[in-house]
Amino acid sequence: MTLTPLSGTPAEDAAAVRAEAQRQRILDAAQRCFIARGFHAGSISDIAAEAEISQGLMYRYFENKRALILALIERQLAYDQDAIGHMPAAADLVDGLLRCYQLWARGETLETRGNAIANVALYAEITAEAHRDPVVADVLRRHDRQTSAAITGWLRQHDIARGRTPEDADLERRTLLMRLLVEGLAMRAVRDPDLAAETVRGLLAVAIASVLGE
Amino acid sequence: MTLTPLSGTPAEDAAAVRAEAQRQRILDAAQRCFIARGFHAGSISDIAAEAEISQGLMYRYFENKRALILALIERQLAYDQDAIGHMPAAADLVDGLLRCYQLWARGETLETRGNAIANVALYAEITAEAHRDPVVADVLRRHDRQTSAAITGWLRQHDIARGRTPEDADLERRTLLMRLLVEGLAMRAVRDPDLAAETVRGLLAVAIASVLGE
Repeated sequence: MTLTPLSGTPAEDAAAVRAEAQRQRILDAAQRCFIARGFHAGSISDIAAEAEISQGLMYRYFENKRALILALIERQLAYDQDAIGHMPAAADLVDGLLRCYQLWARGETLETRGNAIANVALYAEITAEAHRDPVVADVLRRHDRQTSAAITGWLRQHDIARGRTPEDADLERRTLLMRLLVEGLAMRAVRDPDLAAETVRGLLAVAIASVLGE
Repeated sequence: MTLTPLSGTPAEDAAAVRAEAQRQRILDAAQRCFIARGFHAGSISDIAAEAEISQGLMYRYFENKRALILALIERQLAYDQDAIGHMPAAADLVDGLLRCYQLWARGETLETRGNAIANVALYAEITAEAHRDPVVADVLRRHDRQTSAAITGWLRQHDIARGRTPEDADLERRTLLMRLLVEGLAMRAVRDPDLAAETVRGLLAVAIASVLGE
């Protein structure tokens, strides 16, 4: 989240908090619209209607749909960084990813923080749009590199805490494996939502051990 | 590909071949439109224009956009089955997947058969649409299970040829890993197209050995 830092008078601070809440409400509405109809089907006034605000007010926050998708990418980055900051131990990571798969398979949107991918349809929509729009691709890739760097940093600390001295090339491979597992599972959740829990857990137990260098 | 079986008079056969070529040309046009603008942005008459045919002729082949996306899923299944039928040995599989990643990263569409995912943007678009439309989801999932079954069958033969007796649960985990690698790499290609070849190859060398039960 990009909360406006509070540093004005109490009245200014209260206005900034209200503006940020409004901004998040608009993003939630945009996310619902993009998931339901795709990025290109609806207009910015449809999204204003979904957010129950006037079109004029909408434009004070976001000048066009691209600005909305960029803000959604930024919000996803904040979720990711938070999730990585709270990455649990191996066994919990296996169960956590299994729960993500099951939730994605039901088509649900995680409303809380600390999740890998908030909604698979939005993830797919943003990926498709990055393919079309170089500006979206550029922002997505910059944020994606930050997420990978955060995972690599977490793995490095994990190794050091166990008295190991990890090589960069090894950390990069393990970071890549972690990302393939999460993103692959997100795609599987839509395309094959009925995978047996023991199949997913059995695979993840071995793969997550690899990610952790064990 | 669903080529109409030829069993009529020479004139009927020639007509069937022309109709199938027309059908494939329409699907190519629909694919280009969906990649360029998303599934919901354009109309079926836009796709007819892209295919350079009349709207009336278009409706003789496909009654709506859903019929087009279902036919594209079917065509992808044919590609997949063909690719699995020609799956190479471990070392070639690593290089083949690395080449797929590099091609997807350049945003290219594989025009030939034997590829894992023809185009990442189309793949993302179909995934997003499956999230929205239960009919699309149903067809996608049925085809997806056939692809997984083909991979499992290939792995079983691979094991048997090496004198091993594979267990079903083991084959299912290895099939899932193979799918996570391919689909994860497709997503990585859009979001992180600059991964070093040695990172991808290094990870795949280990992961593909796991897939092959080595």
